[in-house]
Amino acid sequence: MLPRRSERLVLKPEDVQPSTANFKVIGVFNPGAVRLGNEIVLLARVSEQPSEHRPDVTGLPRLGSDGAVVVDWLANDNLDRSDSRVVRRKDDGLQRLTSISHLRVFRSHDGKPEHFTVGPKFLPQSSYEEYGVEDPRITRLDGKYWITYVAVSRFGAATALASTVDFVTFERHGLIFYPDNKDVVLFPHKVQGKYVSLHRPSPSSRFSRPQIWLAYSADLMHWGNHEPIYAGSEGWESDRVGAGAPPIAIDEGWLEIYHGSRQATRAGEVGAYSAGALLLDRNDPTCLLRRSRGVIMQPSADFEKQGFVPSVVFPTALIDAGDLLHLYYGAADTCVGVVQFSRHELLEALQ
Amino acid sequence: MLPRRSERLVLKPEDVQPSTANFKVIGVFNPGAVRLGNEIVLLARVSEQPSEHRPDVTGLPRLGSDGAVVVDWLANDNLDRSDSRVVRRKDDGLQRLTSISHLRVFRSHDGKPEHFTVGPKFLPQSSYEEYGVEDPRITRLDGKYWITYVAVSRFGAATALASTVDFVTFERHGLIFYPDNKDVVLFPHKVQGKYVSLHRPSPSSRFSRPQIWLAYSADLMHWGNHEPIYAGSEGWESDRVGAGAPPIAIDEGWLEIYHGSRQATRAGEVGAYSAGALLLDRNDPTCLLRRSRGVIMQPSADFEKQGFVPSVVFPTALIDAGDLLHLYYGAADTCVGVVQFSRHELLEALQ
Repeated sequence: MLPRRSERLVLKPEDVQPSTANFKVIGVFNPGAVRLGNEIVLLARVSEQPSEHRPDVTGLPRLGSDGAVVVDWLANDNLDRSDSRVVRRKDDGLQRLTSISHLRVFRSHDGKPEHFTVGPKFLPQSSYEEYGVEDPRITRLDGKYWITYVAVSRFGAATALASTVDFVTFERHGLIFYPDNKDVVLFPHKVQGKYVSLHRPSPSSRFSRPQIWLAYSADLMHWGNHEPIYAGSEGWESDRVGAGAPPIAIDEGWLEIYHGSRQATRAGEVGAYSAGALLLDRNDPTCLLRRSRGVIMQPSADFEKQGFVPSVVFPTALIDAGDLLHLYYGAADTCVGVVQFSRHELLEALQ
Repeated sequence: MLPRRSERLVLKPEDVQPSTANFKVIGVFNPGAVRLGNEIVLLARVSEQPSEHRPDVTGLPRLGSDGAVVVDWLANDNLDRSDSRVVRRKDDGLQRLTSISHLRVFRSHDGKPEHFTVGPKFLPQSSYEEYGVEDPRITRLDGKYWITYVAVSRFGAATALASTVDFVTFERHGLIFYPDNKDVVLFPHKVQGKYVSLHRPSPSSRFSRPQIWLAYSADLMHWGNHEPIYAGSEGWESDRVGAGAPPIAIDEGWLEIYHGSRQATRAGEVGAYSAGALLLDRNDPTCLLRRSRGVIMQPSADFEKQGFVPSVVFPTALIDAGDLLHLYYGAADTCVGVVQFSRHELLEALQ
C-alpha cells in the first residue's frame, strides 16, 4: 500500500444528466484522462438504468434497431439476479447487462472537481455496441488521441478503437480485439517500430485465470504477436488481472498501473478490485522488470467501498506531474476518484 | 442431408504408433488435407493418453520444461470427470485435458486408405502448446502450405500458424489468435488485396452462443476488421458453430463446410456434431448468400457414432475433384473418414 498524497472524489452520478428520457444515471466511473493544453479532459463511462420500476420483472436496456435505447422487461422468475451488473436467464443460461453505458466528456481548467463541465456524449451506435460502450482508455499517439473502449453486445465484450483531436467529434475505427477482450491500453510510443498494446482475453475454457497479454501492430487496426506477460497469483489478484492505465514512459522503463481482483470479499480482506504496479522493459515490454510488493491501492474511502459494485478501485489513467503521479480511477462502479502518489514512493514500492 | 456418394474410414488409432514410450494412441482425427502433386497428404491430430492405469488417480499429460511429455497424477476425489475430454478440479474450478495431441503426416499416392504411409510428426514445443496441438487446417497460398492449428495451454485454446512446402519440415510463426479461438481457416486467395480468415472466439461471457467470425490481414500474422458472420440457430447447431474446411472458390462464391453442435443428444436426434454448408460472396465474404437447408451430414456410420466422443462428424478439409467434392473429417474424435458429395447436389441443397 502506498500513501495517498491526496485523494478526491471527482465525479458522482448526481453530476450527470441522463442521456435518455425515462432513464436514471447510476454510475459515472472508469475514466480515460489526459492533459490537453491547460485542461484536464476526462472521458468517463456513464451507466444508466430505466427509471421505471415494475413489479416482478427486470428492465434490461439495449440499443434498438432505430438507434434509440429500448427496454426488454423479463420475468424475475426466470432470472438469476445475484450479480448487480448482469442477470442470467435460468432457461438457457444466457446473460444480459442490467444497465447500458455511454461515454461522456468532462473538462476542467485546473482538474478541480468543482470546475468540471459536462461535454459531448459518445453513444452506443453499432450492433457491436448493442449493450453499451464502457471503460475508455486514452493514449496520445501521432498527434491524435486514441481511445480503446469496450463494446458490449450479444457477441460478447470486445474492444473497439476511436480517435479524436478535440474531444468534440470522434472518429470510429471498429473492433480491434474480438470477444471477450477488455482492458486494452495502447502504449504512447512505438517500440522497435511497432505499436504496442496490453490486452486481457477472457477465454471460456478455465485452464487458468485471465491474464494480461501484449500484442503488436503496424497500423493500430490489425494486431498479432500475442504473448501473455503477467498472471496474478497472490490473494488480492488471484481471480483476474487486467491493464489499468495506459503505460507511461519513465527512465526505468514502462510503468503500468493495473488492477487485480479476488473472487470473494470478507470483512478485513483487501477489496474486490485493487491496484498494483508493473515495470516493463523499454525495448522489450514482454519482459517484466519489477512489480509492486502487493497492492499499491485498495478500497478504503466510503465512496470506494459502497456503490453499485462494492469495494472497487479500478485504475484507468495515469498523468505524469513530475514528482507526483495523478491516478484517475473508477470507485465502486459508481464514481470517479483521483489520487496522487509520490513518484519516488511508487518506484520504491517496485521490487 | 446429402447422399454420400462414397464413404470410407481412412485412419484409425491402430494405424498409428505412439509418439512416446508409455503412451497409447486413442485417436487420429480432424485432418487437414491437400492434394500435393499426385498424392493426397493428410496432417491429422493424434491424441494420446498414458498407457498406465493407477487406481483412484487420473494421469494428465503435459509438455514438461525439458520438452518431453510428463504426466501429473491427480486424485479422482477432486475431479469432475463427466466429460471424457477434460477434467475439472473441484477445489478451484480449473480444467486439464485428459489427453495430449500432436500432428502427424500421412501420404497416399491415390488416397486409398490401404495406401497411406505414416510421415513426420509435428510435436508440441512451446509454452503455448503445453497441453498439445490440435485440429490443423491447411491452405495453399503464395506457393506454400499454411497450417492453422489449435495451441492449447494453461492460457487457453489459441490458434497458431505454421507453414511448409513439403510436409517434411515445418516453420512455426507463433500465435495469430489469442484464446479462446479455434476453428480458424484461411481463404486460398486474397480478397480485395487482403488475406481473409474465418475464426471462432469463445468468450467467457454468455450473451449468446459462439459464432463464426471473419477477419482480414495484410501479412497473415496481424489480424483485424473482425466481424461476426454466422450464428447457428436451429436445433442441430444451437450450441455452437465453427468453420470446418478452408473455403474453396467456386463459380457461385466461397463454399464453406462448417460444423454445428447441440448440447445434448437423445436417441433419434441429430448427433452432437454435424456439418452444414455456407455460400459467401466472392468479393465480400462477410455477406452470406445461401446456406444449406439443415445438415448436409450427420453421424450415421458406426465409427462416427461410437468413439472417444460419440456422435461426431467434424469436417476439416474439402478437396475439389470436379463433379465430386471429397470431404475429410474427424469421426467421434477417434478416426478419419472421407465422404464424396456430388457438387450438383451440394449446390442444390443451398438456399
